[in-house]
Amino acid sequence: MTDDALAGHLQELRRGTVVMAALATLSRPTYGYALLETLAEAGFAVDGNTLYPLLRRLEKQGLLTSEWNTEESRPRKFYRVSRNGEALLQALLDEWQGLHVSIEKLR
Amino acid sequence: MTDDALAGHLQELRRGTVVMAALATLSRPTYGYALLETLAEAGFAVDGNTLYPLLRRLEKQGLLTSEWNTEESRPRKFYRVSRNGEALLQALLDEWQGLHVSIEKLR
Repeated sequence: MTDDALAGHLQELRRGTVVMAALATLSRPTYGYALLETLAEAGFAVDGNTLYPLLRRLEKQGLLTSEWNTEESRPRKFYRVSRNGEALLQALLDEWQGLHVSIEKLR
Repeated sequence: MTDDALAGHLQELRRGTVVMAALATLSRPTYGYALLETLAEAGFAVDGNTLYPLLRRLEKQGLLTSEWNTEESRPRKFYRVSRNGEALLQALLDEWQGLHVSIEKLR
């Protein structure tokens, strides 16, 4: 097995969890870079080139709402999970829990 | 949120777990269709159009070995996890466990 193959399989496992992690974090309004930091601290290494387009995509799908905060010297776009996003988050967490049980069965 | 968006996000979450589930099951030599059934029983709904190419890809990567069993009336190709595959499985399970802890932190 090459290191590339290993990295690819690990990457694929992580990829599906990023949306779930982002939605879970965005129960509080957060701007992109702060979200990136929170996710990294929680163990989700995701870079901006992945996260920022994802946030725009989730907003377009109606899963996030956004609002500009212009009170600080530098205006920042804050994202927050919408009601639909909360429903998706719950569905993902349920699925995740189910997958966890399934994996434990196979181990 | 459309049903398509929901299905897409759920699908992405599941996708990364299929390799892990297949490797875990193939500690015993198993042929494709039997593997499909075992995975379905464990809660991994994956269809043949996804699983069979995946098995060939994993074999090409040296993660599975295969052997034809011609003792039955219908010859069947049995797959089994290789030593490299076992190493990948362990890495995936460790990563999975880490992701589980990370998700719990964010909930």
